[in-house]
Amino acid sequence: MSDNRPIGIFDSGLGGLSVVKQIIRILPNEDLLYLGDNARVPYGGRSKEIVTKFSFENANFLVRKKVKCIVVACNTSSALAGGELKRKLPVPVFDVISPATAEAKKETKSGRIGVIGTRGTIGSKAYPFKHAKACPLFVPFIEEGEVDTPALKIVARKYLEKFKKAKIDTLILGCTHYPIIKKIIEEEVDNNVKIIDPGISISYYLAAYLKKNNLMNSQKQRGRREYYVTDYNKRFVKVAEMFLGHKINHNLKRVELQS
Amino acid sequence: MSDNRPIGIFDSGLGGLSVVKQIIRILPNEDLLYLGDNARVPYGGRSKEIVTKFSFENANFLVRKKVKCIVVACNTSSALAGGELKRKLPVPVFDVISPATAEAKKETKSGRIGVIGTRGTIGSKAYPFKHAKACPLFVPFIEEGEVDTPALKIVARKYLEKFKKAKIDTLILGCTHYPIIKKIIEEEVDNNVKIIDPGISISYYLAAYLKKNNLMNSQKQRGRREYYVTDYNKRFVKVAEMFLGHKINHNLKRVELQS
Repeated sequence: MSDNRPIGIFDSGLGGLSVVKQIIRILPNEDLLYLGDNARVPYGGRSKEIVTKFSFENANFLVRKKVKCIVVACNTSSALAGGELKRKLPVPVFDVISPATAEAKKETKSGRIGVIGTRGTIGSKAYPFKHAKACPLFVPFIEEGEVDTPALKIVARKYLEKFKKAKIDTLILGCTHYPIIKKIIEEEVDNNVKIIDPGISISYYLAAYLKKNNLMNSQKQRGRREYYVTDYNKRFVKVAEMFLGHKINHNLKRVELQS
Repeated sequence: MSDNRPIGIFDSGLGGLSVVKQIIRILPNEDLLYLGDNARVPYGGRSKEIVTKFSFENANFLVRKKVKCIVVACNTSSALAGGELKRKLPVPVFDVISPATAEAKKETKSGRIGVIGTRGTIGSKAYPFKHAKACPLFVPFIEEGEVDTPALKIVARKYLEKFKKAKIDTLILGCTHYPIIKKIIEEEVDNNVKIIDPGISISYYLAAYLKKNNLMNSQKQRGRREYYVTDYNKRFVKVAEMFLGHKINHNLKRVELQS
């Protein structure tokens, strides 16, 4: 048994391509359909009401494209709208938070787990850990390609010092942008802390789910990948490739969402 | 002769309230109607097509509210959509770029004028000056209330060093957020450089226009001010008051725009 429909993935912008990168690695034969709502990025500081509205518009685009399931690659969407999406959509919905939470609990020895993310993600307490910190300036730095500058290091030190004091042994990167600056985060928090990338956790979780439910794609060749965005200019292609880690062969296609 | 309808003002978010602050100071008896599209802020990195679409949605909200004219308080909207708004809307439209440009040309002695702004504003060349620099990290720093930190100073130094070398004598703050960090900008660019705040330029320009065309509000008391936003949470009130420079008595009202 198999299901050859594509997997749908959406994010507030292009950061979710760091999740796609992992899904491609772990499920290379799956067809993927990605939607980045970069006309309205970032979601991190917006209200629950607005994030929920935008998330449903994104998800419904993917449903109309006949995906077999949806991965909410955005931590803020997962945190603020994940429950409602799961209840109301006609296909299985996966958030990026639950698998990372489970993995962190498995990995920790001391029980002291930390999480960083946007204001929305951290404020929602969707990651159920005491040691949590919103790092709102990380996303703009990364989007600007400023991933290894003195200013970023100062900002990172200020955000992360509390984790050093708390002696955490595990840290969840609760925003799809953060894997890009993993090295700087490791340096500032302590090189021995185990870093959890939710993009990796969700990919293994998804692979196990598809296998168990006989929903894997049966094709032998490499899956097809389509990338949709709500805003387009040439600079976005470069940003997209930074997160994806390779060239985008087919272009980003601009679409209008229905409200 | 007079016209007692309100003046409409819109911005991509709350930064435009730094323009409202100046309009209140210079035209205290005018009724004002402000719309901040903070559900989709920031516009600075988006395409011309999307900025134009969003700008018309904002402007049409104000037109339906029967304003006598519209001030495009957002530099990015002014730069990318100002011309089309002026041609197509049924009321007079004022951008923030032309009055500041005229003032800078009047103020300069050496003829070396600089301008800073978002990627969209600078890329558009709407400010017709050779010495121009996009400063995309300023907006997130200011929105986070990080207006006097070491990291911001490093970022500012890097953005502004070219103006020191170019020996400009006049600098336009081509983004409504920047007046908040005027002091840091002055320090980094040289304390003798004349700083032009387009919010002040447009306010005097608007006052002269209304007077000349007999469109001033005839009321003797302080004008009424209404503030509409496309996204609401409590934190936004604090950010709004930072730009406005005083408390907001009536709340921010959330509205849905028609697309």
